[in-house]
Amino acid sequence: MKLYRCERFEGIAGLALCEEPDPPPPRGHQVLVQVNASSLNFRELLLMNGAFRDWMSPNFIPASDGAGVVLAIGEHVRRFRPGDRVMANFAENWHGGARPRHADTLGRGAIVEGMLRERVVLSEEELVAVPDHLSDEEAATLPCAALTAWNALCQHAPLLPGQTVLVQGTGGVSIFALQLARLFGARVIATSSSDAKLKRLVELGADATINYRETPRWDEAVLALTAGQGVDLVVEVGGAATFPQSVAATRDSGRISVVGMLSGAPSPGDGFFMRGLSIATIRVGSRQDFEIMNRAIGLHKLRPVIDSVYGFADVPAALRRLESQQHFGKIVIRHR
Amino acid sequence: MKLYRCERFEGIAGLALCEEPDPPPPRGHQVLVQVNASSLNFRELLLMNGAFRDWMSPNFIPASDGAGVVLAIGEHVRRFRPGDRVMANFAENWHGGARPRHADTLGRGAIVEGMLRERVVLSEEELVAVPDHLSDEEAATLPCAALTAWNALCQHAPLLPGQTVLVQGTGGVSIFALQLARLFGARVIATSSSDAKLKRLVELGADATINYRETPRWDEAVLALTAGQGVDLVVEVGGAATFPQSVAATRDSGRISVVGMLSGAPSPGDGFFMRGLSIATIRVGSRQDFEIMNRAIGLHKLRPVIDSVYGFADVPAALRRLESQQHFGKIVIRHR
Amino acid sequence: MKLYRCERFEGIAGLALCEEPDPPPPRGHQVLVQVNASSLNFRELLLMNGAFRDWMSPNFIPASDGAGVVLAIGEHVRRFRPGDRVMANFAENWHGGARPRHADTLGRGAIVEGMLRERVVLSEEELVAVPDHLSDEEAATLPCAALTAWNALCQHAPLLPGQTVLVQGTGGVSIFALQLARLFGARVIATSSSDAKLKRLVELGADATINYRETPRWDEAVLALTAGQGVDLVVEVGGAATFPQSVAATRDSGRISVVGMLSGAPSPGDGFFMRGLSIATIRVGSRQDFEIMNRAIGLHKLRPVIDSVYGFADVPAALRRLESQQHFGKIVIRHR
Amino acid sequence: MKLYRCERFEGIAGLALCEEPDPPPPRGHQVLVQVNASSLNFRELLLMNGAFRDWMSPNFIPASDGAGVVLAIGEHVRRFRPGDRVMANFAENWHGGARPRHADTLGRGAIVEGMLRERVVLSEEELVAVPDHLSDEEAATLPCAALTAWNALCQHAPLLPGQTVLVQGTGGVSIFALQLARLFGARVIATSSSDAKLKRLVELGADATINYRETPRWDEAVLALTAGQGVDLVVEVGGAATFPQSVAATRDSGRISVVGMLSGAPSPGDGFFMRGLSIATIRVGSRQDFEIMNRAIGLHKLRPVIDSVYGFADVPAALRRLESQQHFGKIVIRHR
Repeated sequence: MKLYRCERFEGIAGLALCEEPDPPPPRGHQVLVQVNASSLNFRELLLMNGAFRDWMSPNFIPASDGAGVVLAIGEHVRRFRPGDRVMANFAENWHGGARPRHADTLGRGAIVEGMLRERVVLSEEELVAVPDHLSDEEAATLPCAALTAWNALCQHAPLLPGQTVLVQGTGGVSIFALQLARLFGARVIATSSSDAKLKRLVELGADATINYRETPRWDEAVLALTAGQGVDLVVEVGGAATFPQSVAATRDSGRISVVGMLSGAPSPGDGFFMRGLSIATIRVGSRQDFEIMNRAIGLHKLRPVIDSVYGFADVPAALRRLESQQHFGKIVIRHR
Repeated sequence: MKLYRCERFEGIAGLALCEEPDPPPPRGHQVLVQVNASSLNFRELLLMNGAFRDWMSPNFIPASDGAGVVLAIGEHVRRFRPGDRVMANFAENWHGGARPRHADTLGRGAIVEGMLRERVVLSEEELVAVPDHLSDEEAATLPCAALTAWNALCQHAPLLPGQTVLVQGTGGVSIFALQLARLFGARVIATSSSDAKLKRLVELGADATINYRETPRWDEAVLALTAGQGVDLVVEVGGAATFPQSVAATRDSGRISVVGMLSGAPSPGDGFFMRGLSIATIRVGSRQDFEIMNRAIGLHKLRPVIDSVYGFADVPAALRRLESQQHFGKIVIRHR
Repeated sequence: MKLYRCERFEGIAGLALCEEPDPPPPRGHQVLVQVNASSLNFRELLLMNGAFRDWMSPNFIPASDGAGVVLAIGEHVRRFRPGDRVMANFAENWHGGARPRHADTLGRGAIVEGMLRERVVLSEEELVAVPDHLSDEEAATLPCAALTAWNALCQHAPLLPGQTVLVQGTGGVSIFALQLARLFGARVIATSSSDAKLKRLVELGADATINYRETPRWDEAVLALTAGQGVDLVVEVGGAATFPQSVAATRDSGRISVVGMLSGAPSPGDGFFMRGLSIATIRVGSRQDFEIMNRAIGLHKLRPVIDSVYGFADVPAALRRLESQQHFGKIVIRHR
Repeated sequence: MKLYRCERFEGIAGLALCEEPDPPPPRGHQVLVQVNASSLNFRELLLMNGAFRDWMSPNFIPASDGAGVVLAIGEHVRRFRPGDRVMANFAENWHGGARPRHADTLGRGAIVEGMLRERVVLSEEELVAVPDHLSDEEAATLPCAALTAWNALCQHAPLLPGQTVLVQGTGGVSIFALQLARLFGARVIATSSSDAKLKRLVELGADATINYRETPRWDEAVLALTAGQGVDLVVEVGGAATFPQSVAATRDSGRISVVGMLSGAPSPGDGFFMRGLSIATIRVGSRQDFEIMNRAIGLHKLRPVIDSVYGFADVPAALRRLESQQHFGKIVIRHR
């Protein structure tokens, strides 16, 4: 089968398209999956650039997110049958509840390997069913970005109808956070540096938008939109550069779900503690979280926003698109 | 001012329209409210018929639910100003958190008195603001029925988007449960004995309906609508007559919020315990719950369903309408 | 290896001591465990008598609870090494969070098999480490009874220091509930029909005891012990015969964890709903729950109460002891 | 009556002992309390030094914490009777649930006033009963420090038996956190710069101690005490100077309750987000929280640690003792 390996920590240049033997037939609780599509996260670039070289070796297969169809199952498998459409959970061994110590993540080159390949064998415990209304390309966008957004909204305390959420920018997590927050009945305020993108966010359901380039004190704009109180929840993706304003834009006793640190680790500042805020760090989620989210996605026929779809031979181009940060929504690889 | 008193535990016949002195001016944390509208709950008839005569005396002013405008405030009041539109919380002294032991309920004739009057003095702690988009008549429907429905959906564990809720019939709580469950992103299955009423429930957002007269084994119909699994949550209003079927219609580890016992106390039966269900009894809610619900009602411009509006002189006719159980939605009294 | 099979649904008479081939070497995530001790639950008798014959076949290996040592591991195992002391979780496939639909339980004769044998192969995901201070005999008592007691105390809402718990009788779950409730800082009221047993419950930490034979209205005795308010939590093991009194002995808005139905399914009655109680049904718990409980057991060096220890050849005698209901604490089988 | 006023934001020098008329008789829900003892928090010095001068005026009566006896009650009071022993909750108007926007705190010189006086009138909703076993001096230590410690342990998720908590130093909150964590069945690791103080912490129940002067990398010492994993919960009182080490001493997915910032606002750092930690800021708690905590204190006969007791005339000396930071436990004023 064909697959990609990150042979050296040199970013896109370190990537190689390889041909290797097919995985052995599944046994026990194993499932053989034909990967029909995968999607890319910014994390792929971090890993390929060696940002975590202290904890991992090169020569891994990148991409945590994929979707496909069950080709064969081991003799003890009860959750799936050949022909079922499936996705793999981002965090291996995290089946439900709190994250266990032996959890690992697909595409990190340890025991587990990523999805940039034609076929993969995984335990049935790591797989979830694809919502019927989604294509493989759409399903491939969910494992990391959508589940991160879902848990940012409800991991520590579920968002309630009528509450207000602030989402930042147009990355995959932020767009999913917007779409999912609407399913919780929340009001969504979205920021971007581009009026064209803000227009698309409104089409996706944003109740109010702020162009943070035109309005550098976007925190004050948020307060103005919330009768001076601030939002109930911020889905923080920016990190140090945005955090102080996120704090200022959050209501007393509100909370901030931190899902990314594009600009480094944030410092909460005095206001944070004076006003009783709380912070939760989101590390994607469990297989059970994934299944619960998929019920919502299925019921509401939520459609992931896809920026672009590339062929399996064009993964380097897809990664360059990701690197450009010009995308709106997810970048997908079609494997066949 | 004019008001109604239940002078004797003789149901509607025991009710008298009286003229009494106005309340004294508000002082301290007190607020004087002009009651512009009130609404009726089945509980009013129970109280007027003496169902709780062991715990209360006659000669009380009925009706827990009302809405109006602040006329004057005491010197310490900070939450409201004259001219603010307000509703009173159903459970007095229950401001937030768990129900305190000294909680009491409006319209029970103890210290507190009901809303079938022109003016009332209450502590600012018992009042909440009316969502802007609601008329007084609409606001008057919320305190008991809507808050009961809200807490039936989220008191013990918030309903999540994608989950399925079963609501029973077309009483006030059930219709609010349908409308509110939609705000949580849930799927709603509704039952009624009338196709005409089911049609209206669909207009209000029900995803599926069952005519329990035509389909006496409505629990099996629920299973058929949920891939054999049952619903995540039942908002149980029927009691003994419906409970066994409610249990059968609930998924493994699901839950039942009991808000009424029209047909007496239910017995869960073996299935209940074999399948890991849980039961929560709902006793309306706190002022803080009320405020949180109102944010959702305000954001989504939810409109309460009003069956009929009566003038203040026509309270007996309004109560007969309630007694008939022919209503669809809430029965409201316009005070002026 | 030697093992017991329930060959026919004829209770103890249907049990046979057999000799069968050893399990194959563990592979993948499998672990080969030498079972050094097992313990018996009342559920064993129900299964052997065919109480669940509609859902299972005879010829199964009984006993869900066992403890032993890892003999060998498959090539992917990361949680355990040979020589580690382990117990198996009661509910197979329930690793954390809510109970998944494909959960199954040891000793039910489906895919999984029980512990009355010398060696067993299980997935590493099903095993937990034995707290250091416990013998194999003591560890073997934990999987079903202790974890049921633990979740009865904290599954839906953790017991808080200062709250009061009622435990009933001297079965395995009730004694564990007493011991564990003490670790939560709770006050424990215990009932029994024997003063001698009550004396032992006091030695184990019961703050107050009631002889329900001498005081048939033990609910009134509970109220007297709680300033007329009732307990915060009842760990209900009796079922129909005790439930109405359990309801009467519970405070307003309190809760009842139902873990058994020795006398059939209970009916909550009017008081239940008037007073805002809630019921949760406990179905043992997840592997993660088990690990969390074990930390408490380890820190406090909690010692399970063992009624008696039988040799592997004496399982029928041990089951008769269980059947007699004269035991105080757990009945254990030593396998070697 | 005699009372103290902070006449100018000049710290202890700005304090004056005054004589003013007694409060008027209580009416409605008001309660007249004779304050028998009060206690001091570091916050008193901050307020008297004008740290919050942007939000408050001088001339206030300091000290949020006091205990005494009910002298008289208004005509609607139901929770207390003359002769009852009571404490006032720290946060006014916060009766239960989430902190409401109109919550205020005693001793801030707004509507509410502090406890350094002989008599005070408060709403019955702001008062809680004193646990029977406590003296007035002991009770006066609870409102701010003990409730802060309690909520640091259980506000966002109750501490479970078997978990490990890190407490820092020997201030009031830290000592209460140690004592209360023991009631939850937790293991407590405590730090101090003095071996003599560490000895006393062990006597109070600390399971392990670290002298952070002798062991500047106390975070590594914590890891060594927890098998390399870190604690489940840190009760953080230090702020910027300690936070990075607190993060390093916390286990994956653990949490930090921030209750103070002696050394300024902390910055979580990269490790915080990589390891999935969460932060909650504690702002004391509601009256209901206070009542729930008092049940635990009452059941376990927990005795607050009192550093020293001063007469009412010696408040300046008591404040100097507080300023010295040499105290171990709470500094109390006896009013009569």
